[in-house]
Amino acid sequence: MTENPDNPVPVEETARFEPKFDANGLLTAVVTDLRSKDVLMVAFMNREALEATLQSGIAHFWSRSRQKLWQKGETSGNVLRVAEVLVDCDQDAVVLKAQPAGPACHTGRRSCFYRVWKDGSLVKVKD
Amino acid sequence: MTENPDNPVPVEETARFEPKFDANGLLTAVVTDLRSKDVLMVAFMNREALEATLQSGIAHFWSRSRQKLWQKGETSGNVLRVAEVLVDCDQDAVVLKAQPAGPACHTGRRSCFYRVWKDGSLVKVKD
Repeated sequence: MTENPDNPVPVEETARFEPKFDANGLLTAVVTDLRSKDVLMVAFMNREALEATLQSGIAHFWSRSRQKLWQKGETSGNVLRVAEVLVDCDQDAVVLKAQPAGPACHTGRRSCFYRVWKDGSLVKVKD
Repeated sequence: MTENPDNPVPVEETARFEPKFDANGLLTAVVTDLRSKDVLMVAFMNREALEATLQSGIAHFWSRSRQKLWQKGETSGNVLRVAEVLVDCDQDAVVLKAQPAGPACHTGRRSCFYRVWKDGSLVKVKD
């Protein structure tokens, strides 16, 4: 992601795919629902997860807590079939437009973003 | 974000807003267009940026490269007016539904995600 898009920095418009992994070797990955366009979840990808995703068409991520590659849905079956991978201007974040096989969130909800901030508290939104 | 939503972990359904900043004191922030629902940009927020955003209704972030708070649009005028802040299941990522005053990307494009991966290269999508 661009840290400060208001700063004059060289415009990066290459057709070359050159992902910029951070100091921990990670990109930020945002998964959106191909149909509703809602954001379903946010996770991280190392190079291995990115390549596995591009090759298989199924979303893979890097688990920071477990320090291992994981395919979303590998145990639940709720895989994310990736239709498109969008890349941001400085190539350190991707958006995966995906068809979810089931709830993306471990709470059983369609999206991990099922609460909205309101006056200092969180209110559940319709799932 | 949930590192592994498929893992059985305690379901977190609290109404308490308790953002979980990472080891660097940051949350991931995804900005979507309130109207089109497109993802406009991804950036990071420390506690100060989060509070400034909630208090002002204008998106603020933490610049990792410059190590300072920045209000998106502070120089360009292309501020992001935040209509809703969604919080994910484990409270380490937020989605800002925003009305952009102008292009969100420093390239002048509406969204930083203006290229799609195709067979190893990047192809520009209609802006």
